[in-house]
Amino acid sequence: MSKHFRNIGSKAGMVPGTLIHIGERTTEKIKITRFVYNDKIMEEDILEEHQDFLPDERENAVTWINLNAIHEPELIGKIGESLDLHLLTLEDILNTGQRPKMEDFEEYIYIVIKMLTFNETESQVDVEQISVILGKNYVISFQEKEGDVFDEIRDRIRLNKGKIRKKGPDYLLYTMLDAIVDNYFLLLEKFGEKLEFMEENLVLKPEPETLREIYKQKRELIYLRKSIWPLRELISNLDKYHSTLIKKDTYIYLRDVYDHSYQVQETVETFRDMVSGMLDIYLSSVSNKMNEIMKILTIFAAIFIPLTFLAGVYGMNFKYLPELNWKWAYPVWWGISLLLISGMLFYFRRKNWL
Amino acid sequence: MSKHFRNIGSKAGMVPGTLIHIGERTTEKIKITRFVYNDKIMEEDILEEHQDFLPDERENAVTWINLNAIHEPELIGKIGESLDLHLLTLEDILNTGQRPKMEDFEEYIYIVIKMLTFNETESQVDVEQISVILGKNYVISFQEKEGDVFDEIRDRIRLNKGKIRKKGPDYLLYTMLDAIVDNYFLLLEKFGEKLEFMEENLVLKPEPETLREIYKQKRELIYLRKSIWPLRELISNLDKYHSTLIKKDTYIYLRDVYDHSYQVQETVETFRDMVSGMLDIYLSSVSNKMNEIMKILTIFAAIFIPLTFLAGVYGMNFKYLPELNWKWAYPVWWGISLLLISGMLFYFRRKNWL
Amino acid sequence: MSKHFRNIGSKAGMVPGTLIHIGERTTEKIKITRFVYNDKIMEEDILEEHQDFLPDERENAVTWINLNAIHEPELIGKIGESLDLHLLTLEDILNTGQRPKMEDFEEYIYIVIKMLTFNETESQVDVEQISVILGKNYVISFQEKEGDVFDEIRDRIRLNKGKIRKKGPDYLLYTMLDAIVDNYFLLLEKFGEKLEFMEENLVLKPEPETLREIYKQKRELIYLRKSIWPLRELISNLDKYHSTLIKKDTYIYLRDVYDHSYQVQETVETFRDMVSGMLDIYLSSVSNKMNEIMKILTIFAAIFIPLTFLAGVYGMNFKYLPELNWKWAYPVWWGISLLLISGMLFYFRRKNWL
Amino acid sequence: MSKHFRNIGSKAGMVPGTLIHIGERTTEKIKITRFVYNDKIMEEDILEEHQDFLPDERENAVTWINLNAIHEPELIGKIGESLDLHLLTLEDILNTGQRPKMEDFEEYIYIVIKMLTFNETESQVDVEQISVILGKNYVISFQEKEGDVFDEIRDRIRLNKGKIRKKGPDYLLYTMLDAIVDNYFLLLEKFGEKLEFMEENLVLKPEPETLREIYKQKRELIYLRKSIWPLRELISNLDKYHSTLIKKDTYIYLRDVYDHSYQVQETVETFRDMVSGMLDIYLSSVSNKMNEIMKILTIFAAIFIPLTFLAGVYGMNFKYLPELNWKWAYPVWWGISLLLISGMLFYFRRKNWL
Amino acid sequence: MSKHFRNIGSKAGMVPGTLIHIGERTTEKIKITRFVYNDKIMEEDILEEHQDFLPDERENAVTWINLNAIHEPELIGKIGESLDLHLLTLEDILNTGQRPKMEDFEEYIYIVIKMLTFNETESQVDVEQISVILGKNYVISFQEKEGDVFDEIRDRIRLNKGKIRKKGPDYLLYTMLDAIVDNYFLLLEKFGEKLEFMEENLVLKPEPETLREIYKQKRELIYLRKSIWPLRELISNLDKYHSTLIKKDTYIYLRDVYDHSYQVQETVETFRDMVSGMLDIYLSSVSNKMNEIMKILTIFAAIFIPLTFLAGVYGMNFKYLPELNWKWAYPVWWGISLLLISGMLFYFRRKNWL
Repeated sequence: MSKHFRNIGSKAGMVPGTLIHIGERTTEKIKITRFVYNDKIMEEDILEEHQDFLPDERENAVTWINLNAIHEPELIGKIGESLDLHLLTLEDILNTGQRPKMEDFEEYIYIVIKMLTFNETESQVDVEQISVILGKNYVISFQEKEGDVFDEIRDRIRLNKGKIRKKGPDYLLYTMLDAIVDNYFLLLEKFGEKLEFMEENLVLKPEPETLREIYKQKRELIYLRKSIWPLRELISNLDKYHSTLIKKDTYIYLRDVYDHSYQVQETVETFRDMVSGMLDIYLSSVSNKMNEIMKILTIFAAIFIPLTFLAGVYGMNFKYLPELNWKWAYPVWWGISLLLISGMLFYFRRKNWL
Repeated sequence: MSKHFRNIGSKAGMVPGTLIHIGERTTEKIKITRFVYNDKIMEEDILEEHQDFLPDERENAVTWINLNAIHEPELIGKIGESLDLHLLTLEDILNTGQRPKMEDFEEYIYIVIKMLTFNETESQVDVEQISVILGKNYVISFQEKEGDVFDEIRDRIRLNKGKIRKKGPDYLLYTMLDAIVDNYFLLLEKFGEKLEFMEENLVLKPEPETLREIYKQKRELIYLRKSIWPLRELISNLDKYHSTLIKKDTYIYLRDVYDHSYQVQETVETFRDMVSGMLDIYLSSVSNKMNEIMKILTIFAAIFIPLTFLAGVYGMNFKYLPELNWKWAYPVWWGISLLLISGMLFYFRRKNWL
Repeated sequence: MSKHFRNIGSKAGMVPGTLIHIGERTTEKIKITRFVYNDKIMEEDILEEHQDFLPDERENAVTWINLNAIHEPELIGKIGESLDLHLLTLEDILNTGQRPKMEDFEEYIYIVIKMLTFNETESQVDVEQISVILGKNYVISFQEKEGDVFDEIRDRIRLNKGKIRKKGPDYLLYTMLDAIVDNYFLLLEKFGEKLEFMEENLVLKPEPETLREIYKQKRELIYLRKSIWPLRELISNLDKYHSTLIKKDTYIYLRDVYDHSYQVQETVETFRDMVSGMLDIYLSSVSNKMNEIMKILTIFAAIFIPLTFLAGVYGMNFKYLPELNWKWAYPVWWGISLLLISGMLFYFRRKNWL
Repeated sequence: MSKHFRNIGSKAGMVPGTLIHIGERTTEKIKITRFVYNDKIMEEDILEEHQDFLPDERENAVTWINLNAIHEPELIGKIGESLDLHLLTLEDILNTGQRPKMEDFEEYIYIVIKMLTFNETESQVDVEQISVILGKNYVISFQEKEGDVFDEIRDRIRLNKGKIRKKGPDYLLYTMLDAIVDNYFLLLEKFGEKLEFMEENLVLKPEPETLREIYKQKRELIYLRKSIWPLRELISNLDKYHSTLIKKDTYIYLRDVYDHSYQVQETVETFRDMVSGMLDIYLSSVSNKMNEIMKILTIFAAIFIPLTFLAGVYGMNFKYLPELNWKWAYPVWWGISLLLISGMLFYFRRKNWL
Repeated sequence: MSKHFRNIGSKAGMVPGTLIHIGERTTEKIKITRFVYNDKIMEEDILEEHQDFLPDERENAVTWINLNAIHEPELIGKIGESLDLHLLTLEDILNTGQRPKMEDFEEYIYIVIKMLTFNETESQVDVEQISVILGKNYVISFQEKEGDVFDEIRDRIRLNKGKIRKKGPDYLLYTMLDAIVDNYFLLLEKFGEKLEFMEENLVLKPEPETLREIYKQKRELIYLRKSIWPLRELISNLDKYHSTLIKKDTYIYLRDVYDHSYQVQETVETFRDMVSGMLDIYLSSVSNKMNEIMKILTIFAAIFIPLTFLAGVYGMNFKYLPELNWKWAYPVWWGISLLLISGMLFYFRRKNWL
């Protein structure tokens, strides 16, 4: 099974509510980083698994806990317990085959989103599921593996750049969504370059291989679309539910992310149009090539078949065949032949075949 | 008539409300199993047809009656009578050609859903209709034949695993829906494997047979889609009607099943895209093959037709044909011929035909 | 003009409200049958045109008047007058080119629906427009020609089978809709058989004729769809308007008809998918056939053209052509020729062309 | 520029609210006819430009002013002033490139609609824009050129046929819409005949020309659709806004026009299906023709190329070629040749090529 | 990267709210023009960057500030500060990759729209983003480069033409939108001419190049559509939000712009239909050309291959070949040959190949 359908069947037959990690397994220890900050303070440390995961209760303090992997269900379970998360939420965090969505559990909002990167070596899109929990005074994020697009955010918290330290956890959530969606643009840029490269190649040498490449990119786009499509709905739902967890002046920022996700989607649609255009060009170039081949065949046949016939005539052994004894018969025969050849060449040139 | 349209006409002209079994007939006796459970008690027995089908009235007790077949209209009628079910419900239970739906009769909710299994021998999808009635303190399920995906649920009831014994019949309904939908993922995994296998084959040897196979899978997908598509609506209706039969904290579980059914649907759509991609590749590979054939023809024709002409020239019987008497005419002729052949081969190689 | 567009222009330029019959004209006299029934009484008679058409006013009595043709505008006008029907309703009854719809005139509900039958001789769908008026205590139905699907209903009224005599005119309307929709299933079954037969034929011998047949069925499906598509909306409108003419417990029956009409529609869509699949198979089989032809041509050309050249070589009349005088030249020549033939045959077999 | 995009750019850069005529210019004088009528009176006259355009204020009197052309902006401006029409309305009246719409200005309703006629000489659809203003007690209609579909309405007013003289201006508006929509049916009938004629021709002799014709009709249909599509919305808006200018019992008539416009639209869609079906048939008949050509080529090549080889064999000049001296060699050679020919013919017949 | 995806990735990883110019950079100084006008006064001047940008507070005075470029984030920041604009608005103004939208910030409305021009040299659509801020008594517009479609508006303000000086800033906004949308019509007219030219060319000489040209125009249309599509929504949102910044009698004007944007959109859709029609014609003309080629080949082969065989027969060297010694053998042979040729020519003419 390719990555596109990974794990789709592995949960079947389980008790609902059982915590099982579904996804690529890594053996590394999970690294848990914690930021606690408000306007004045900023603390950053690495949590051990046995520590507790309660948010800092100082005034206006925002606690951001980030896990760089999710392959230890017990740990996820422990976090869920200390923050009073619903069992289904924990199940969803552990299952990496989710489609992007947001769920409002009143006490907290649960968001699943996909972080996408373009794998240049295999020219395909790599995907990592990010789960984010937004609570009253905390944000917890769960990633699938090391490496993310949040370093810029961490720097801003550390250095008190921008408004982030003056705002609540909802603003932190917004910056995270913004970072993920902005990263989509980078991905699309690389994807677009890939497509334009393919398009030029298509014109230079259309080969059966090319078709397979086009088809592969088409599938990547379907996959990309599947990951990005629900995003708009997700953000518009955040807007619609008017959860008390999101302050009023944050909505304007979410609307901005919404606009970006709209643009991302439109670009994906444009790419799909490009790919199907490439398919059309490929198919028609196959037909054109056939025409080329047929032309060559026809030119050779039309010129030499009549001449062969003419040569055959004077290869006959009839006793009474007067031309055979004529003196200038042979040169005249060549004259007629060359005339025929020129005539055919002229005809084909006029038809624009040569 | 294939399974896809089975029985569609056999009910026409009947009095509405007449109980007639429409579907594959089995001769076995219907097996009726009953579970009665709550937090403390758990009773499991097999009912005889003459017994009554009233739910257990002890406090918090949930009665789950399951029939493994529906070919005896009188029995269904009797059950309907004791539980006060609408005649149309009974009619629908007996007619296996229903599309998935839910109907709220206030006293009870009636749900029709399809249980799907992948028949590997015939590489097609087998379907079994499940009718479930959710009442105040009971669940009745009607299957088409022996064998289901509920064994896990039975074990959980027997062994008091998870929360099922602490919850009401609505939670039981949820676990049943969850089991059925989870099973779809298994089906899709197998279907996906089948498609990927076909896809590889397509690249290795495209044959007319392949087209028919693609087409067959396309139809299976149409059928699959027809069975799965209404599911989302069904569950979202359960959510919307706010029936008093479903407790508030069960809705969050139904939303989870809803998400899964969404994912199932998306996968089916992806499969459809795969299949139409395969069609494109097949058709274009037929064109490519034609090009191959034409190239071979053209190469042979372009090389040998001019040479045959040249041989014809010196096969002529003109009396005055000076070359015939030249000493080196024959080797020179061969030289010219070989030159022509090399020229053509060089030309075709440059055109990338060889 | 074919039946698909019959009469579309013949009404243009008329005064709106003028009663003119638009449709196939029959010369027979219109036969008017009347049922009057309630729980206890049941009267059936044939009305003369001069009689009045007022419904029976006894308690709970339902009057069902049925006309088997509509080619006498004066008669329709007279009926309209006695029952106080709107002029536009009468106009619609007389115009057989209506699309299925329902209109609520408060005092009565007007329904247009299509009765479809599969004409096996011409393998096409025949259509008959049925107009039904549901009043407070009566139902009037107008048909285009003799023969309908209501005989079962008549029997039920006569013999007091089922609930029909205990219910009002809205239930009668439901049974009529149910009979018409159930009849669609019969039609679809026959249509499906036709399609499956065509599909098998397609595989055995694809001919240009086949294409035309596919195309014809496609048009029949478009027509079928046009007749069936508005049905769902019609019934859902009946549900939505909450007319006082339809009792509350009848709605559950209408919902059942709605489900059936949904199923009908889905089957029509599946048929459309089948037909376009057949088109694909046809077109690709034409390409495959071309490949076949080209292969035969190429095999013959590739084998014999080089040999003809070789024969031509030794047909030349050069004076100094040493091979001509060799003793074993001729058998050796045949040896080389046969070697070439075998080589080509082997090559083509390896390419799977033979 | 073809008629399909006429004038689209000619208004750019103008001050909004400037009255400029955009459309085909005619030099004739505009003819203004006026009807004033109610139950008892009926006056018909031709207005001069200097006269005033105020509606008749007698009780229940309806004033209908009709202009047969719009190429004099000053006149339109004057009418607008006396009836207090919005500047944008006047601008729209003068611009013949409007899409059908209705606008409610409270004091009056403004409607734009297209009158379509089938131009048989050029087998295309001619279009004329009609603007109608419905006021409290008047209707003003603006046409592009002489000739319309309202003569029937004029007769009814003159002769007091039907209900028109008893009703208000809203009923007059209805009859006008009805006349225009009924005329669409006539157009569609002619268009349908044209298409059926083309379809038969397609079967008899598919030529490149045919394709261009199909394509042309396809564009006419796109244009037709563009003119008709907004009609349903227009009428449904009339219904929705519940303007006080339209009396309650007129709505039922508008609903009737709505139904007709629905039917018109469906027919246009059916025509589009027909046209794309014709495209399919055309394309596949091109492929079939290619197959025909290839068959002929292959038959000739397969029969004569081997025989030519055989003749070449005995044209060789080997000294030791025993068959040359056999007595029956020549007849035997012919026997073999004829056998080969019959064999090939038999083979091709079995393949159904002959 | 082509213009279609310019800059899509260049913002990723930035702090949200950082003001960075994304777009083509010009080195010229930004020119800031200011109009202040009401019924009586009209002042026009050019602002220096150090001046303040507060709107004129005289009664009914409207201040219109226009910037002809946006490549100085500090300037934009300063303007934003003095008018109290949201940071996200400033960010959007600076980012030229926005999709058209309107945002209501209560104190002001922010609108992004695309100004499109047809670049005839490269036969592609050039795009310039216009941001407009509508405040209580001011309008600020930001352009990407020198040159716009507002000169007509400036003249009207200067010369007090039309109603503009009597109306507020909302009317000014309307005239700007109107000017931009009217300009689309000009663009579409040129685009339409280009397409009609291509279409004629297509008929005269279909070449592989043509396909690429069609495909290029198709992409331009996708891009055009992307720029125009959101416009309708934008204007309908202006209508829907009922902002107090827009006076009631301005809505009727906005509705007019809405109608125009609808028409623009429909024309774009028609163009897309034209382009795909051209694709169909191109592809089918490739097939037709193939048929032509095959016909020529087949005619030559069918005529000369049998004759070559016939010549081969009498080139054989059998000792006992009686015809060779017949006196009239040679002329008779020619007779038969010419008969065969005429027969074939007649056959092909009857098949309409010649």
